[in-house]
Amino acid sequence: MSNIKPSLAKGTRDFSPQEMVKRNYIFDTIKTVFKKYGYAEIQTPAMENLATLTGKYGDEGDKLIFKILNSGDFLSKVKPEQMAQANSNAITSSISEKALRYDLTVPFARYVVMHQNDIALPFKRFQVQPVWRADRPQKGRYREFYQCDVDVVGSDSLLNEAEFVLIYQEALSNLGLKDFTIKINNRKILSGIAEVVGKPELIVDMTVAIDKLDKIGLEGVIKELLERGFTEADIEQLKPVILLEGSNTEKLNSLRAVLSASATGLKGIEEIEQVFEYLAGMLMPEAPKPDLELDITLARGLNYYTGCIFEVKTNEVAMGSIGGGGRYDDLTGMFGLKGLTGAGISFGADRIYDVLQELNLFPESAAAGTKVLISNFDQDAERYALPILQQLRNASIATELYPSSAKLKKQMSYADDKGIPFVILIGSDEMQTGLLTLKDMQSGKQQKLTTIAIIDLLKR
Amino acid sequence: MSNIKPSLAKGTRDFSPQEMVKRNYIFDTIKTVFKKYGYAEIQTPAMENLATLTGKYGDEGDKLIFKILNSGDFLSKVKPEQMAQANSNAITSSISEKALRYDLTVPFARYVVMHQNDIALPFKRFQVQPVWRADRPQKGRYREFYQCDVDVVGSDSLLNEAEFVLIYQEALSNLGLKDFTIKINNRKILSGIAEVVGKPELIVDMTVAIDKLDKIGLEGVIKELLERGFTEADIEQLKPVILLEGSNTEKLNSLRAVLSASATGLKGIEEIEQVFEYLAGMLMPEAPKPDLELDITLARGLNYYTGCIFEVKTNEVAMGSIGGGGRYDDLTGMFGLKGLTGAGISFGADRIYDVLQELNLFPESAAAGTKVLISNFDQDAERYALPILQQLRNASIATELYPSSAKLKKQMSYADDKGIPFVILIGSDEMQTGLLTLKDMQSGKQQKLTTIAIIDLLKR
Repeated sequence: MSNIKPSLAKGTRDFSPQEMVKRNYIFDTIKTVFKKYGYAEIQTPAMENLATLTGKYGDEGDKLIFKILNSGDFLSKVKPEQMAQANSNAITSSISEKALRYDLTVPFARYVVMHQNDIALPFKRFQVQPVWRADRPQKGRYREFYQCDVDVVGSDSLLNEAEFVLIYQEALSNLGLKDFTIKINNRKILSGIAEVVGKPELIVDMTVAIDKLDKIGLEGVIKELLERGFTEADIEQLKPVILLEGSNTEKLNSLRAVLSASATGLKGIEEIEQVFEYLAGMLMPEAPKPDLELDITLARGLNYYTGCIFEVKTNEVAMGSIGGGGRYDDLTGMFGLKGLTGAGISFGADRIYDVLQELNLFPESAAAGTKVLISNFDQDAERYALPILQQLRNASIATELYPSSAKLKKQMSYADDKGIPFVILIGSDEMQTGLLTLKDMQSGKQQKLTTIAIIDLLKR
Repeated sequence: MSNIKPSLAKGTRDFSPQEMVKRNYIFDTIKTVFKKYGYAEIQTPAMENLATLTGKYGDEGDKLIFKILNSGDFLSKVKPEQMAQANSNAITSSISEKALRYDLTVPFARYVVMHQNDIALPFKRFQVQPVWRADRPQKGRYREFYQCDVDVVGSDSLLNEAEFVLIYQEALSNLGLKDFTIKINNRKILSGIAEVVGKPELIVDMTVAIDKLDKIGLEGVIKELLERGFTEADIEQLKPVILLEGSNTEKLNSLRAVLSASATGLKGIEEIEQVFEYLAGMLMPEAPKPDLELDITLARGLNYYTGCIFEVKTNEVAMGSIGGGGRYDDLTGMFGLKGLTGAGISFGADRIYDVLQELNLFPESAAAGTKVLISNFDQDAERYALPILQQLRNASIATELYPSSAKLKKQMSYADDKGIPFVILIGSDEMQTGLLTLKDMQSGKQQKLTTIAIIDLLKR
């Protein structure tokens, strides 16, 4: 037994009761919306076979996967010459067969392939579980964090994309956010642009550069495009795209002109229009219209997405994106099941937490643990309190009896520290009359009431 | 990208939508009771520093801890002579600094010590999270499984123990179990018996042997006691204890006679009596009396518990214990914070799942995902359906529109596979009259109704 002062593993966090109530409030609100749209929850194990994960996240990603050491005599599978070379990379696969989940998408793909005979397509699932990344921890970046994903696989209908917009709209509104922007783009539009310029192989370079418009301005973007292999003539062609402005309809019209020679590009425009059309058909007259903005610079996960791309930002607080996603045409191909298209979005729960905290949007109820504490004066009062304690609980009121006859001041400060809003005081007077003293901890107001009356009051 | 057929890591499980709904039903039911008794949720990270975990579970336990390989060039900290020896044990601490949580108790102790200045004592917390053990997987034993723990630290009141009995009673009853036994014992009684026999050092041997009475009978127990160092004379003294029978009160009276010379033993009896007294005071007249049985052979986690010990078994299905716990007088001592007493119990969620499954106790509602599917005949019907889809969702009815105009048979079998109880059929007739066809998938019955009437019916 060591007596070393214990600490958390780097980049990980404990969640206190107060934090848990708020986190659960966020997850529950989002999950309720997922379910309303027909999505069902699954869970996958924290540990996956290493072979399931490696090669899915690029070389940089592979390095960030937490590997689990084989149990027992793990060195027994390492050959003596490998031992002599002491090469960590070469040795890893001999001493580690399992790793921690890096995201929820690859395990979902594995799930779909493994259970393909049991699931009805389209398969609509959500998943809210932690993932682990051996990233360098910094403010807002952790080595363990929750992802909150919703995906559909086996349906190419753009209704799914339209519903993702509504899911964002409804979930974020239900969380109290009032001003946020859902950005939409389409990979096919980006491909079309690169095609029209005659540099389809430079699509990634092009989007990386255009994506920086907000940060480095037009001059900066042009400089970067030149460095990345575009000519002055290319840039002339790209300018209307880089500087695209106006309403979504105006943007689409400009793009249609630029992309008239690209079948792929026009398909991208058509997809976006179809999403808008679905949304127009689904929005109730009284519902707030989502702030949906076509943003041609949006290019997250470009190697991955093949159709629509989404990203959400709040306009009330300076904060990176609080959600994103898109369509990927070959989710399960990595596990040998071809031709299954998928689409999905995710919510950034940690960032949403920070936003709600900053805007003071957590409801009162998201702080509610124990509702009432019964004080404990002495053994007689304790005995008197026991049936009352259970009467309150039977009325579904979270109740505690202070477990010893400590000083009243200590009992009161216990209620204070735990944020318990009411205390019932029971002394000899109360035991004689049956009228208990109920103290409102916030106002300090006290009143004498029967148990029944207290239950009525607390249930209101 | 490998095309290898993907598989699960040994001893781990996926949870399907149907399983998740049932698992959530169990966890939610139990958590609701925890909260009613004033317990608040915390979460700790999956990864702990290896030093936090090692030495806490005995040598056997240490071997079952999953260690995480350091990131990057993990061999750089291994000395050449260590490499040459190729000793897995000696090398582990050089290549692994972190490990996966083995239970929820040690992380809880770490939490209490690290946050001692922020928490109000007594600190009542519950925690429902997965743990990982490198055990040999077998039926009912997994390498990843959820623990569901509730503990109080910083209160020696036996009210806590009494409330644990009520928590078991209420949670298991709410889950629909009708016949279960909560067994109670006290470590001090076991100590007292070993003391009276004059073999206090053999307390573990004694309880291990007595614990087998059900399996190997009196003769077997006597044989084992002899093998473990007890004399014939000792066994004569132990016989009334081994063969203890009657009501709890009768048992306590017999024990009081046997233990009259042991202050510790008498203290144990007193503690049990105090728990019974609390329970008598708290039970409502109409509440079912918990089947609480003093069982002197109950000795789980003996090295650990110092006071009351609990274990719960269902009598409706052959199954090991579905819960257990007890008091441990020095929870946080392992991290240098002395003198904090704790007590806690846990629920075996996997076993409870199997019990409910076998007894068919999962409620209908624990299968409910999407409530109604709207069929998709063609583009016109799809467009007509869009506002109806949102109208139903606005009424909090989980609704899906089939995302393409596939064959009706396919759409119906989608509803069937997903267990969706209602389908709305919209054809040209429905669009003309505004009366939609609602089909009850179980009875096959169809009726024509307005959207409003359908909402009324489904909300009922």
